[in-house]
Amino acid sequence: MPQSLDDIRYEVALANRILAHEGVMDAFGHVSVRHPDDPGRYLLSRSRGPELVEPADILEFDLDSEPLVPPTARLYSERVIHGEIYKARPEVTAVCHHHSPAVLPFCLTGKKLTPVYHLGAVIGLNAPFWDQRDEFGDTNLLVVKPEEGRSLARALGAHWVVLMRRHGATVAGTTLRDCVFRTIYSCRNAEYQLQAEKYGAIGPLSAGEIEQAGGIHQQAGPLNRAWEYWVRRIEKKGEAPPRTRTTAARRAKSSARRVKPAPRRKAARKGRR
Amino acid sequence: MPQSLDDIRYEVALANRILAHEGVMDAFGHVSVRHPDDPGRYLLSRSRGPELVEPADILEFDLDSEPLVPPTARLYSERVIHGEIYKARPEVTAVCHHHSPAVLPFCLTGKKLTPVYHLGAVIGLNAPFWDQRDEFGDTNLLVVKPEEGRSLARALGAHWVVLMRRHGATVAGTTLRDCVFRTIYSCRNAEYQLQAEKYGAIGPLSAGEIEQAGGIHQQAGPLNRAWEYWVRRIEKKGEAPPRTRTTAARRAKSSARRVKPAPRRKAARKGRR
Amino acid sequence: MPQSLDDIRYEVALANRILAHEGVMDAFGHVSVRHPDDPGRYLLSRSRGPELVEPADILEFDLDSEPLVPPTARLYSERVIHGEIYKARPEVTAVCHHHSPAVLPFCLTGKKLTPVYHLGAVIGLNAPFWDQRDEFGDTNLLVVKPEEGRSLARALGAHWVVLMRRHGATVAGTTLRDCVFRTIYSCRNAEYQLQAEKYGAIGPLSAGEIEQAGGIHQQAGPLNRAWEYWVRRIEKKGEAPPRTRTTAARRAKSSARRVKPAPRRKAARKGRR
Amino acid sequence: MPQSLDDIRYEVALANRILAHEGVMDAFGHVSVRHPDDPGRYLLSRSRGPELVEPADILEFDLDSEPLVPPTARLYSERVIHGEIYKARPEVTAVCHHHSPAVLPFCLTGKKLTPVYHLGAVIGLNAPFWDQRDEFGDTNLLVVKPEEGRSLARALGAHWVVLMRRHGATVAGTTLRDCVFRTIYSCRNAEYQLQAEKYGAIGPLSAGEIEQAGGIHQQAGPLNRAWEYWVRRIEKKGEAPPRTRTTAARRAKSSARRVKPAPRRKAARKGRR
Repeated sequence: MPQSLDDIRYEVALANRILAHEGVMDAFGHVSVRHPDDPGRYLLSRSRGPELVEPADILEFDLDSEPLVPPTARLYSERVIHGEIYKARPEVTAVCHHHSPAVLPFCLTGKKLTPVYHLGAVIGLNAPFWDQRDEFGDTNLLVVKPEEGRSLARALGAHWVVLMRRHGATVAGTTLRDCVFRTIYSCRNAEYQLQAEKYGAIGPLSAGEIEQAGGIHQQAGPLNRAWEYWVRRIEKKGEAPPRTRTTAARRAKSSARRVKPAPRRKAARKGRR
Repeated sequence: MPQSLDDIRYEVALANRILAHEGVMDAFGHVSVRHPDDPGRYLLSRSRGPELVEPADILEFDLDSEPLVPPTARLYSERVIHGEIYKARPEVTAVCHHHSPAVLPFCLTGKKLTPVYHLGAVIGLNAPFWDQRDEFGDTNLLVVKPEEGRSLARALGAHWVVLMRRHGATVAGTTLRDCVFRTIYSCRNAEYQLQAEKYGAIGPLSAGEIEQAGGIHQQAGPLNRAWEYWVRRIEKKGEAPPRTRTTAARRAKSSARRVKPAPRRKAARKGRR
Repeated sequence: MPQSLDDIRYEVALANRILAHEGVMDAFGHVSVRHPDDPGRYLLSRSRGPELVEPADILEFDLDSEPLVPPTARLYSERVIHGEIYKARPEVTAVCHHHSPAVLPFCLTGKKLTPVYHLGAVIGLNAPFWDQRDEFGDTNLLVVKPEEGRSLARALGAHWVVLMRRHGATVAGTTLRDCVFRTIYSCRNAEYQLQAEKYGAIGPLSAGEIEQAGGIHQQAGPLNRAWEYWVRRIEKKGEAPPRTRTTAARRAKSSARRVKPAPRRKAARKGRR
Repeated sequence: MPQSLDDIRYEVALANRILAHEGVMDAFGHVSVRHPDDPGRYLLSRSRGPELVEPADILEFDLDSEPLVPPTARLYSERVIHGEIYKARPEVTAVCHHHSPAVLPFCLTGKKLTPVYHLGAVIGLNAPFWDQRDEFGDTNLLVVKPEEGRSLARALGAHWVVLMRRHGATVAGTTLRDCVFRTIYSCRNAEYQLQAEKYGAIGPLSAGEIEQAGGIHQQAGPLNRAWEYWVRRIEKKGEAPPRTRTTAARRAKSSARRVKPAPRRKAARKGRR
């Protein structure tokens, strides 16, 4: 069952709110998704705190990060982060930019982020660094110009997480849920790595373990379990995004399930060992 | 008064939610209880975040961790942790598996977890380590195969807490409440141990103190005081599990007490010094 | 205006809940007050988590910590902490015993707790240590026997805070609000002291500063400002203790003020510089 | 559109509550604003916890920090902090004094606070230190006398943040929102700086980066995005200040916007890249 654009707008709003609620974002940070029908476009909120994003805030941009219709509201200044990564990585369908406290110690010191427990394998073998100063000298540290975005996308390369000196991080994903999962568990891994190394030498994951454990978030089981958990946590607080009239009507017609199924969920429903 | 299976299902759901609410679990982790009438079976939720578990999610498994009836929902992949410990330890009636941030610094470095204050005595004299890699080489670090579960149970031996390298911990208990108490206070002890040793040498509990203080969670007084506190904290937030129709009806007939009495509570009600 | 016993029971319940809400206590810990009319008695809850204490739970004890009427509920086992300090310190009218995470690093290592900022002056010049093992050898670390309580009271001496090895702390106060203030700000001071010394040598308060700043919590202004703040925080969450019928009726007759005035508040209402 | 005095009182109450909600203040701390029509006056709450401040609590003071009308309620004892900075710095229109846990490690050790990430540039090139003991010897560490306030204002000089030994910090701003933004992000920067340097040498912002990134909080976009986020967070919890009858009436007549626009917002609404 393909998702309607309304469903996707709702899910992007949800993803923004989840990332705020789980402590990754505060007033700043944003997550986008590639357009399901046109790989040359992506969907991103107008400029506002991620915790407040509503489906109606989600606008369409081309890969040069220009809005498809003239904006009536202020836009994020760092849109090129999204557009340039979508250009460089065809298999990437979601991008998150954040300044989580979890990764800032790495961003400030240049310390290497390494998978140290099974869920941290979502980082992949390597999380490269990017220092805006290297190429552009003194700036306000925001990634605003296309060439800045392209430079960041080059640094990310074929990886999933890129750390940005004195600034934050950017995370790519194969789906929106994969991107949220990678973002949250790369932050948890960062926290555990920092905490643990104060007490002894860390025995990190082997390359084989990273590869095998790294597939967890690609399986419907763990991915949907985590997604349902994050969604319900904000629903229980009454902080889920408001439904637009269209989606509310369609939902009323369909079943009363509270958590929207992921595309792959049906197959995943079969018991397994 | 023996507990009905419905009561036990409710209490398992409650235990899962308590452990999530007290910061031990996030989207992952699970706690099970042995079947009260058949030591060859145990009760565990279908696969979902512990904070969301409902009585209706609790299914029955044999000690090979096979569901007694064909599942209609996805199951946890790490069920053998529970089944193999129930096989190896007849006196154990509850098992919890978690990745609490409190224990991860130990899991990542191999640092020894030691009782450092009276409530930490629930850990017991020793908390052994288990490294899946030793016996099984590169894996995705999940404990999925029966031989992996058996290996973990061997490492636990006669102890109550086993730490799992690059993964988390597993805790056994003589009752479900004992298991929850041991899990939460072993996590608190872990936090205090790490924090304290940055500031000086810790004078840990003596073997005699561990033995004497370790009995606290076996006494109805402290055990029920803590259980009532944890239950009320989630009740006050409206996060207690929903009652099934059966249990709701039975409760309506009995007294209006809000906290379900522990089996041993009646005896404990007498004043003591 | 003297406070009725009902008012005092309400205030003791409130003090317990405040200390739980501000992170000093979890399922364990308790705060008591001396009887306003009979210095040979004190008021303390029956055994339950401090966050749950209600006015009806508050019972009367003599200074040997025996209940005045035969108890129908389980009592705290560590009552002698309160009774023996009231015996030894006539000017003390409130006692708090807790295991706050803030002080545990001190309790585990023997590190000295020192006032490091103006509000930390509530600790006083010195916070002595007491190690139950010194006099009593291996125990379960609870202070249960009268001689254990007397030993602790001797260690406290003329001070306001005594740290208990491998266990927690006990705090005395000239009034219940003073005791709550001293407890909370000695915990904050403990946290700041630990955090700061990782980054450089601390320049602690001088003896003169401790004396002058230590009087802040004895002034109606700061003391009532803090009390109102703590009360309102739990009121806003709907977590204030329930009113008994008697107090509810009396309150309905008097003014609609939401925060019960402290005894000295009237005088304090005059503007000052 | 000039703001009415009622609007300003509401915004000052909001600013106090935001700073409490975001963890900068507890029972103590306060934020003031210069009178919009008379630079010789400022607006500050009567003495109460910042989380509780209501528009009706906001009183007017002259720059000697005397109330314009005789007070009927207790006043903050440290008002001279505000008055003396308004005297010394004509371009400053808002002042915040706090004891945030984030800055206390700096205050206790004399460690230098330095911008380490783009949002930390709000600190400016330098955050000077002030030690009350240098000029006044042993005090209770409160800034109560006019000469103490003047000494602090001299230490602040042309900077935006001054750290106070064994006490806390004071932050100045060009507008109330600028002051709140500087206060919150200087605290975040303090936390990240401390955390990061445990793991390696920090590469701080260059002077050019501080200057360029320091302008972010002067732009309507980021400033209003953060303000909307902080306001909505307390609104969602039902913790926004109560409206006075006057402002409620005026608001009913005007549009239903939930977040009051900043003076410069209109211009800011145009899309930009």
